[in-house]
Amino acid sequence: MSGLLGSIKGPDDVKRLAAEELSQLAGEIRDLLVDSCARFGGHLGPNLGVVELTIAVHRVFDSPRDPIVWDTGHQAYVHKLLTGRASGFTALKQEGGLSGYPSQAESEHDFVENSHASTALSYADGLAKAFKLRGDHDRTVVAVIGDGALTGGMAWEALNNIAAGEDLPVVIVVNDNGRSYSPTIGGLASHLSSLRVNRRYEDFLDYVKDKIGNVPLLYDALHGVKKGVKDVLAPQVMFEDLGLKYVGPIDGHDEQAMEAALHKARDFRGPVIVHAVTQKGRGYTPAENHDEDQFHSPGAFDRATGAEKPKGRIWTNVFSEELVRLGKEREDLVAITAAMLHPTGLNAFADAYPDRIYDVGIAEQHALTSAAGLALGGMHPVVAVYATFLNRAFDQLLMDVALHRLPVTVVLDRAGVTGDDGASHNGMWDLSILQVVPGLRIAVPRDGDRLTELLREAVEVTDGPTVLRFPKGPVAEAVEPVGKLGEMDLLRAPEGEPDVLLVGVGPMAQICLDAAVLLDAQGIAATVVDPRWVKPLDEALVLAASAHKLVAVVEDNGRVGGVGDAVARLLRDADVDVPVRTYGIPQEFLDHAKRAAILGKIGLTGQDLARQITEAVAKRTSHVEPARH
Amino acid sequence: MSGLLGSIKGPDDVKRLAAEELSQLAGEIRDLLVDSCARFGGHLGPNLGVVELTIAVHRVFDSPRDPIVWDTGHQAYVHKLLTGRASGFTALKQEGGLSGYPSQAESEHDFVENSHASTALSYADGLAKAFKLRGDHDRTVVAVIGDGALTGGMAWEALNNIAAGEDLPVVIVVNDNGRSYSPTIGGLASHLSSLRVNRRYEDFLDYVKDKIGNVPLLYDALHGVKKGVKDVLAPQVMFEDLGLKYVGPIDGHDEQAMEAALHKARDFRGPVIVHAVTQKGRGYTPAENHDEDQFHSPGAFDRATGAEKPKGRIWTNVFSEELVRLGKEREDLVAITAAMLHPTGLNAFADAYPDRIYDVGIAEQHALTSAAGLALGGMHPVVAVYATFLNRAFDQLLMDVALHRLPVTVVLDRAGVTGDDGASHNGMWDLSILQVVPGLRIAVPRDGDRLTELLREAVEVTDGPTVLRFPKGPVAEAVEPVGKLGEMDLLRAPEGEPDVLLVGVGPMAQICLDAAVLLDAQGIAATVVDPRWVKPLDEALVLAASAHKLVAVVEDNGRVGGVGDAVARLLRDADVDVPVRTYGIPQEFLDHAKRAAILGKIGLTGQDLARQITEAVAKRTSHVEPARH
Repeated sequence: MSGLLGSIKGPDDVKRLAAEELSQLAGEIRDLLVDSCARFGGHLGPNLGVVELTIAVHRVFDSPRDPIVWDTGHQAYVHKLLTGRASGFTALKQEGGLSGYPSQAESEHDFVENSHASTALSYADGLAKAFKLRGDHDRTVVAVIGDGALTGGMAWEALNNIAAGEDLPVVIVVNDNGRSYSPTIGGLASHLSSLRVNRRYEDFLDYVKDKIGNVPLLYDALHGVKKGVKDVLAPQVMFEDLGLKYVGPIDGHDEQAMEAALHKARDFRGPVIVHAVTQKGRGYTPAENHDEDQFHSPGAFDRATGAEKPKGRIWTNVFSEELVRLGKEREDLVAITAAMLHPTGLNAFADAYPDRIYDVGIAEQHALTSAAGLALGGMHPVVAVYATFLNRAFDQLLMDVALHRLPVTVVLDRAGVTGDDGASHNGMWDLSILQVVPGLRIAVPRDGDRLTELLREAVEVTDGPTVLRFPKGPVAEAVEPVGKLGEMDLLRAPEGEPDVLLVGVGPMAQICLDAAVLLDAQGIAATVVDPRWVKPLDEALVLAASAHKLVAVVEDNGRVGGVGDAVARLLRDADVDVPVRTYGIPQEFLDHAKRAAILGKIGLTGQDLARQITEAVAKRTSHVEPARH
Repeated sequence: MSGLLGSIKGPDDVKRLAAEELSQLAGEIRDLLVDSCARFGGHLGPNLGVVELTIAVHRVFDSPRDPIVWDTGHQAYVHKLLTGRASGFTALKQEGGLSGYPSQAESEHDFVENSHASTALSYADGLAKAFKLRGDHDRTVVAVIGDGALTGGMAWEALNNIAAGEDLPVVIVVNDNGRSYSPTIGGLASHLSSLRVNRRYEDFLDYVKDKIGNVPLLYDALHGVKKGVKDVLAPQVMFEDLGLKYVGPIDGHDEQAMEAALHKARDFRGPVIVHAVTQKGRGYTPAENHDEDQFHSPGAFDRATGAEKPKGRIWTNVFSEELVRLGKEREDLVAITAAMLHPTGLNAFADAYPDRIYDVGIAEQHALTSAAGLALGGMHPVVAVYATFLNRAFDQLLMDVALHRLPVTVVLDRAGVTGDDGASHNGMWDLSILQVVPGLRIAVPRDGDRLTELLREAVEVTDGPTVLRFPKGPVAEAVEPVGKLGEMDLLRAPEGEPDVLLVGVGPMAQICLDAAVLLDAQGIAATVVDPRWVKPLDEALVLAASAHKLVAVVEDNGRVGGVGDAVARLLRDADVDVPVRTYGIPQEFLDHAKRAAILGKIGLTGQDLARQITEAVAKRTSHVEPARH
């Protein structure tokens, strides 16, 4: 590593640089960011937007004595570069390489590894309270949070508490790039640099409002659109109402202005908001000009052109297209996203039926309960979220939707192992915690054809909620059934007396088929079924299980409490004591790596499954047979 | 039913009354409320506070065409009285009688049955969107929400969305009794009636601020304390910033003023806040003078004096006292409540260590993540909540606490069947959904001695979170172990060869002991163990199970995904195929009734258990024995 960046081993080295060297440093950082993300993919857009902001934070504060908490840790690449981890960017997000999020194992400068949004202010509140109790009165806690994350309810809970009068030295840096997610506000960014020089802020705000269209309320509040320019340039009213001091808005790409604002905030010794206006994708033209999300998190791309490698057809596409078809047939269908219009594929529905789409912000709780209200009012809402984020709205699904037996369909994308985004993005919880929800039905398609089929079945349910879950990545090839067992698809029926019943949940059906072939070679005859609906389980499973010597359930979900446990319970309750073995994701937080690599490592492959089942059968034989004869 | 109330069969009858009859109606309502609650217990204080407010709502709006959504439905008694259910108050909250919450089965005027806080605005948002899409432009949605519930993040998410520019006709009535929970603001209420006549509002606010002490921020914001009297009497700034029209503050006990405000709000055809200032416990002197919570939800009491029947020693008391002892020994212990200081027993800790207690408002998400921050900062937080409310913070416990292996102890009161508060108060989910949390340890004490012992063990854990859960009601009598099996307590070891291993989770251990005696009489020898820590399970259980013919697990938790499933999985994974049977709460929403009555109904008694196990053993014998010989 050469250049200024090569000399940065930690924040002290950043502080040592002369002011006039900082734009060179920023340039080197952007160069490295673009280079790494072009090779490995990554959260390029957000990080290009916080280069100067992060430099300023590290020059003003004394990390790690002053903890810096990054909300949604994907904006922490620059922080990593400034805390001695530049060399790690040669293997960004690769197995064994640098994580795409803060990591306690990587650095003492990292505190929060979770990358679910809107948590930073609560952490900051707790840290600051702890420092106060311990007498560390000179420490400041810095929380950096996007304007998007401020739409999450827990950020408001935290603001309410931070401001409640303890005078905690918490500096809240609002990184405002005009919403961290789609719909993009287009050319906003290119207008920012000229803003303070050439245009009145008022004109700028009119321009923004014009571009955004259905303006999110918070944006109005942050920018004081409704109150006019006076309040925007004066300390901001909404935060003042909450008892928080406010500094801003600051041009987040003016490093010196940011330093000045942060100094002022630090010296106040109480809670302060520093409102930085930044440009997502700053400094890399293809990102700046990228209409959808300024390269929020592209896969590998061509550095010169910004062209991403084509992804092929993914599960999301199948869902997206089928929902548009259903929307034409069913005028009562509405769709809800929590700030993920494009990633969930709902953008196609939004284009086709602009009156029937709601983007509620990063607000999963509201998404579910607003859906409950829509259903009470006679509509059928489809809420599309990443599987891991539904955990935020578990109580709402249980109490607001299911208790009222309301027809709401929740579509979980990125279910199961997702891979390189690390522990907090794996969707390995839903098939377990959702088991407890009375009246909820859960479908897991094994391929694209089943996805369209099950989505249709789901939105036809009128007496309670349904969940449909599918993984990240390329849609699986279609596997046609050879018959039916109740409502289950029979995928393979061995000739002669069967030994093992393999229950493949969704895409794991293919792995079961792979294993069945290998088991055959061992003289173990395997039946394979795909239940399609895994909650409630089909009663036909009881009879099927009784005809086998062992039942094996395979799911792309945590082993604890999932479909495997449900099958075992079903059989126990029916007094069928045929042994059951369950295979899934070990119940631990997984390190980042590619999905396929992780599946291999945790034994969710046909080969591993065949081996484990062979062993289980062997053990059963050696245990039981002597006792029987 | 005589008097005016006897003539009220529905809202039309309320509308028909002359203005001068309304105070008589209000008096009759209060009389009936006090009478019913004195007999059966109930949410007296909140309902005494909304008598005039509810009359005004039903006179101005056209329920059910205009849906009225009650946040935290316990404030809906008056609504029930005005919608033809007065006669039901002779069996309020009794089995088969009127629910203490809105109920769709009871009335078309009831929409939302869930009584978790802060949901009403999201429901209202959804309902209003549905009406708009369906062309029902003349319908208005009314949401009544307490100032306390506004501290919950999802209420803010909803405000953000409701105000986002669709001009939905949603009238938000903020029922502001100066926080719906303790600490009480004491004599505030008695000053309200004279307020508008004799005192300047500014003086009043100073008085309130003085009384409250550590003023909750939201209260400030609602009342404009920091901005002075000008903004309070003008449309309120904070809500205006959010783009919401504001009417208020209105004296919520001035029925005519409330009607006028609601008329204005209704005619606006867009989102409006109507800020009503009310007095909790209004009109019943013992409630008005009750310092702790104005009879928020007393048990049966003497009407003349307000004296409650002594409750005896409950689980909460044991926790409360032990935590005070621990707080003396451990200066790093801090405690967090989500607006339930007294109900969770943390008030004693607060009195002893006022610097180490945090009441975060109805904000469970923030409670957990702020606890994570405190733990990162070197403290050991104890978060005390009702079991059912932890569902609100599942993601925070998983991602913010557990992923970071932080030492936070969560104490769940009201775990298991709670009874007469209905479906949404039963704490029947925690032992299931918490199973998936990596590194989390869960303890379930069977009696008071075990509670103190396990609480001590929990706060000594340094490498991850712990959960301790106990039920509502009188603490169970101590059961001493007769030995140990690993770390488990052996409570009963039969002479000779044992048949059945009974695993009693917490207080269910006693039921197992009762069952064991009855099984003995049937010639079935039963061992009884209490695992104490149910996650992770003790490996000694594998060996113990192998020595029995049947394992039965009994828990006061939903049958799906709980300790029973965990025991079955543990044995499967060890290739021990001894049959397991699991007993718990059926996985459905339970109707309200007394805890003991529900436990009897769902078979969680010694007698039922003995019967079921006898049957299971008999089936096993008839199934298996012939095959063996």
